[in-house]
Amino acid sequence: MPCETAQLELASSGRGFIEISRQLHSSVNACGISNGLCHVFLRHTSASLLISENADPDVLSDLEHFMSQLVPDGDPAYLHRMEGPDDMPAHIRSVLTCSELTLPIRQGRLALGTWQGVYLWEHRVRPHKRRIELTLVGSA
Amino acid sequence: MPCETAQLELASSGRGFIEISRQLHSSVNACGISNGLCHVFLRHTSASLLISENADPDVLSDLEHFMSQLVPDGDPAYLHRMEGPDDMPAHIRSVLTCSELTLPIRQGRLALGTWQGVYLWEHRVRPHKRRIELTLVGSA
Amino acid sequence: MPCETAQLELASSGRGFIEISRQLHSSVNACGISNGLCHVFLRHTSASLLISENADPDVLSDLEHFMSQLVPDGDPAYLHRMEGPDDMPAHIRSVLTCSELTLPIRQGRLALGTWQGVYLWEHRVRPHKRRIELTLVGSA
Repeated sequence: MPCETAQLELASSGRGFIEISRQLHSSVNACGISNGLCHVFLRHTSASLLISENADPDVLSDLEHFMSQLVPDGDPAYLHRMEGPDDMPAHIRSVLTCSELTLPIRQGRLALGTWQGVYLWEHRVRPHKRRIELTLVGSA
Repeated sequence: MPCETAQLELASSGRGFIEISRQLHSSVNACGISNGLCHVFLRHTSASLLISENADPDVLSDLEHFMSQLVPDGDPAYLHRMEGPDDMPAHIRSVLTCSELTLPIRQGRLALGTWQGVYLWEHRVRPHKRRIELTLVGSA
Repeated sequence: MPCETAQLELASSGRGFIEISRQLHSSVNACGISNGLCHVFLRHTSASLLISENADPDVLSDLEHFMSQLVPDGDPAYLHRMEGPDDMPAHIRSVLTCSELTLPIRQGRLALGTWQGVYLWEHRVRPHKRRIELTLVGSA
């Protein structure tokens, strides 16, 4: 059973969403695995990986609005403040969502549902470089 | 190393929980894998997969109550409203929980803890058809 | 493709965090897998697995404080109360975070980001024994 690896490097422009579905589809198409799994791992604790509705951009806006209300920036209760008012909220957002995802591969393709897109959710206000490790396992 | 696949189709009767542990146990028993992993993937963004306490049904009621308070239906702040007052909350609930789970296989059986059950959590108010992709990998 | 398994047994001293990165690194180093995945599964519904910032202990304190505000102990709305005022909150905390994690293995080592540590988050107030199943798959 093959095991292939790949890396993605993303440059976020600050808080918001970057769709990575296309890059994941490409890696799966290139890996030569017919049926199996594609594991996506974010090497950071202040951003998330997200599966979300890919048709109406308002869904992402509402997600961001919801999270900014639930986990306010600059809450005076935070002890961890030295990296700015958005850093501890970024860690909490990361814990409430996902740092890693496993997705099915079927007949050489990523088997997402029709309305599912995969996103990097940057939680820090300033731009950051983000590294993702892909691991693809299955039958050839 | 074998890689087996299966599909589950579920018909929810609206918001609430459907235990799928039995179907998962059956698929694992049938797949011929001794030690490995069973990956469960929900192809939707308005329902979740859940590992929860399987003994007292009040736990599920309390989970639903908690989530309905945290993510209110019909919040006027939502921009995404065209699919009904329960649709954006369903997407948020999905993001706060899980769309996919990986479970260990040991000696040909799903190795859940004694009190762990696996559930589909339907977040939409009306009934929906839900598709789940299973991927089983490991040693024979 | 090899598939190795291992178990961790942890004794929590009540609500709080236990870093398990070292045990995971040891299991990966010992398993003989070069590139692949390390799956970590917690067999309980009242504790979580967590990837978090590993440098400033205030981050963990802030996470605990945030969660204790979001999911209050002893809320009179809970129906499930027979196991104590911290039991239903523990189940909710578990659902809002993770019971299982998959981590990449690269060149025989766990490929966490520089600032990522892996923790058991005990949600019950009293000490508990916790069992974790490790499954390691990949290429030798």
